[in-house]
Amino acid sequence: MARVSQAHLDARRRQIVEAAARCFARNGFHATSMQDILRESELSAGAVYRYFPSKEELVEAIAGEAFAGIRAAFEEAARTTPPPTPDVLIGRVLRRVLVDAAPGGDRQAFARLVVQVWTETLRNERLAAALDEGYRTMREAWALLVDAYREAGLMEPGVDADHVARTLIATAQGFIAQQALFGDVRVEILEDGLRALMSMGNSKIS
Amino acid sequence: MARVSQAHLDARRRQIVEAAARCFARNGFHATSMQDILRESELSAGAVYRYFPSKEELVEAIAGEAFAGIRAAFEEAARTTPPPTPDVLIGRVLRRVLVDAAPGGDRQAFARLVVQVWTETLRNERLAAALDEGYRTMREAWALLVDAYREAGLMEPGVDADHVARTLIATAQGFIAQQALFGDVRVEILEDGLRALMSMGNSKIS
Repeated sequence: MARVSQAHLDARRRQIVEAAARCFARNGFHATSMQDILRESELSAGAVYRYFPSKEELVEAIAGEAFAGIRAAFEEAARTTPPPTPDVLIGRVLRRVLVDAAPGGDRQAFARLVVQVWTETLRNERLAAALDEGYRTMREAWALLVDAYREAGLMEPGVDADHVARTLIATAQGFIAQQALFGDVRVEILEDGLRALMSMGNSKIS
Repeated sequence: MARVSQAHLDARRRQIVEAAARCFARNGFHATSMQDILRESELSAGAVYRYFPSKEELVEAIAGEAFAGIRAAFEEAARTTPPPTPDVLIGRVLRRVLVDAAPGGDRQAFARLVVQVWTETLRNERLAAALDEGYRTMREAWALLVDAYREAGLMEPGVDADHVARTLIATAQGFIAQQALFGDVRVEILEDGLRALMSMGNSKIS
């Protein structure tokens, strides 16, 4: 038998993850069975289970891809001098994760999946650990950028980098919650809002 | 039979809502039955069902109280000149909702309930409508404050009030998500982070 190429394996994996994401988005995490995912992927049970023994592994893969996308956007940002301001960077990250990477381009469905995953982690320790790790990575990446903002004179020396990191992550998370719940959110809204907030210092007496 | 006083009715209602909130926080919305709530409240089935025919009504009551707390904080803010800056006001609102109003003072449990409610609205139209209404109210309240910021010269005239409103609400929502998921969030972190963001305009070339 001919050896199966890595490209082939990657393509199959992708096919399964995308099928699962479509199923979760359509029917929710709990109402989706492995049977549904098999059917949606148009692959055999053996093929699917070889990659993903359970729904949990599939959710972890989807979350892992989202975090990888975020990390890539940050690494790109870290190579730029001066670093992109928070409004620009958050806009870039959300476009990459919610718009470009959302399965089938349906960003509300993807946002709904994120909110479902949050609820799921409340009783699934493995998923909670995966999310915890992703959150830690994001905090570190933002904190490095805050260092860069300080060096570039864009932020005052005394600010706590981790507090800024957590606030910016909160803003992105809340944006995803709004997208999931109300569905009418454009990335520009958040860019605008952040820019307006950042401008408040211009006139503030401090 | 003596007429039952309004104070008595209110106290009973409160007793049931608090019992339900404790059950939801402990076991999640789905795993909690009306039986569990009856037991926790130490009231008779007849008494409980007279106020709340179903779990849905109880979740709506809890959400309604949270929104009322937020509204009260905003109304208080609107009476102040100049209005409190976003870092101060968001801190005040979150303390009122997550710290003072959280049943039993357990803010992580309350934050987890909020995230569960978000997921629940994805398939419960009545709850979705209640949340939609609460969100609309918050947007209006923030937008009025942004007007006040502009009048007080704290924000530039050209900013879109609704975009700022949605960004600030996103920040609070994301904070609640972090509190639910990771549990180690103090309100001061968000106050600090917002203050640092607001200070970026000081040195920005625009």
